[in-house]
Amino acid sequence: MTEAGPGATLRASMMGDDFTIGFDADDTLWHNETIFENVHLRYRTLLARFHDAGTVEQRLFATEMRNLKRYGYGVKGFMLSAIETAIDLSDGRISAEEIRLIIALGQDMLAHPVELLDGVQDVIGPLAHAHRLLLITKGDLRDQERKLSLSGLAGLFRAVEIVSEKDSGTYERILRRHGIPPQRFLMVGNSLKSDILPVLEIGGVAAHVPYHLTWAAERVDRVPDAAGRFFQLRSLRELPDLVREMRAGPGA
Amino acid sequence: MTEAGPGATLRASMMGDDFTIGFDADDTLWHNETIFENVHLRYRTLLARFHDAGTVEQRLFATEMRNLKRYGYGVKGFMLSAIETAIDLSDGRISAEEIRLIIALGQDMLAHPVELLDGVQDVIGPLAHAHRLLLITKGDLRDQERKLSLSGLAGLFRAVEIVSEKDSGTYERILRRHGIPPQRFLMVGNSLKSDILPVLEIGGVAAHVPYHLTWAAERVDRVPDAAGRFFQLRSLRELPDLVREMRAGPGA
Repeated sequence: MTEAGPGATLRASMMGDDFTIGFDADDTLWHNETIFENVHLRYRTLLARFHDAGTVEQRLFATEMRNLKRYGYGVKGFMLSAIETAIDLSDGRISAEEIRLIIALGQDMLAHPVELLDGVQDVIGPLAHAHRLLLITKGDLRDQERKLSLSGLAGLFRAVEIVSEKDSGTYERILRRHGIPPQRFLMVGNSLKSDILPVLEIGGVAAHVPYHLTWAAERVDRVPDAAGRFFQLRSLRELPDLVREMRAGPGA
Repeated sequence: MTEAGPGATLRASMMGDDFTIGFDADDTLWHNETIFENVHLRYRTLLARFHDAGTVEQRLFATEMRNLKRYGYGVKGFMLSAIETAIDLSDGRISAEEIRLIIALGQDMLAHPVELLDGVQDVIGPLAHAHRLLLITKGDLRDQERKLSLSGLAGLFRAVEIVSEKDSGTYERILRRHGIPPQRFLMVGNSLKSDILPVLEIGGVAAHVPYHLTWAAERVDRVPDAAGRFFQLRSLRELPDLVREMRAGPGA
């Protein structure tokens, strides 16, 4: 792992032995964006007779962002936005049977097997023995519960928080509810916007493990700037070493 | 209020002074089923050229039940099931513009003002001074948060639990998380299936306040049978008296 920013020696004193580790789920523990990517490809193919791929993507994203406040995150909102965009882009010429195909695309996602990312099996179990683990994720309530259940990891988390938005207020509420001081909380996730920046903002520690794809709505230009509280990992396999260093203290 | 079942004197000894009151939200604190009912009417009108109202309702309900496991409860799942049913019932002849109208119906629901039920304003505030109140509801995460925020009641609840299903396991998890013994928990709601029976099942106390409409999926034939732990109220306005009796103890 590499530490981003100065102040490496701060970290152990901030954490100490007893700290809680929060994990994002989609694209941190299991594949998600690759499934969406595949559905986008089939969606673009379906609409190819009306518009080129770039236009389809652009309009779908615009619809999703316009609907985000009312639908929130998750597959169901995506399905509704995809249907709406298809009607818009075809000037109402899309057929009911084609809309049925869009619904089927979404339903396939909701039945998709859960594929754990590399390292998850080896890393999460041992960490759960020594630390309190939380799962903090956004999306559809039912779908996230389904994926957690299929992942085989459910028993390893002390609590599961499925939230409508992952901002600093959300993290504050979760930590308060569990009685966790922010400086004793390490969040691990693939999204700088949802997993890293808001946690650093409230004084927590964050480890970024990038996924090879990032949904446009999760992209940020800001680089985290939090001396000794932000860590960049290449893979979840590097997490145990980071946790060990944090437990060992400044002299380790 | 009337107490359903024998054993009235049990209740006070079971509750004591310090107990938590859980509230359902839709059709217990604010109107919901009336909004759905209005949308159903407009939906049946839209499909009237294909099928009679009874067939439309029957098929829509069948689609919703078939999709319940993948979509869960809430407006977004309803919208997707309504689109799917319209395509089915029209043998694919429904137009894209008509599907756009179904989406608009759903989006109207997601923007609908929150109308509190009679008595809520007068009852909830004073109860919140003396007791820990929880809000326990199912549906879309974002939509339920929106309604709670618009209701003006958010600050009165110690915690808000938006869950994917309200069964005995769900109530057990919630009570465990908050450290509440079931016998010190009173749940108030309009659905026998979701608010009353599962709470009685785990040893809690429940007060049923019926709403004038009940969604078919929430109807049950079973009559609660729990000596001294089940109460039938005509209106939320009767709740303070029940709570007072419970606090006063058996001799009151």
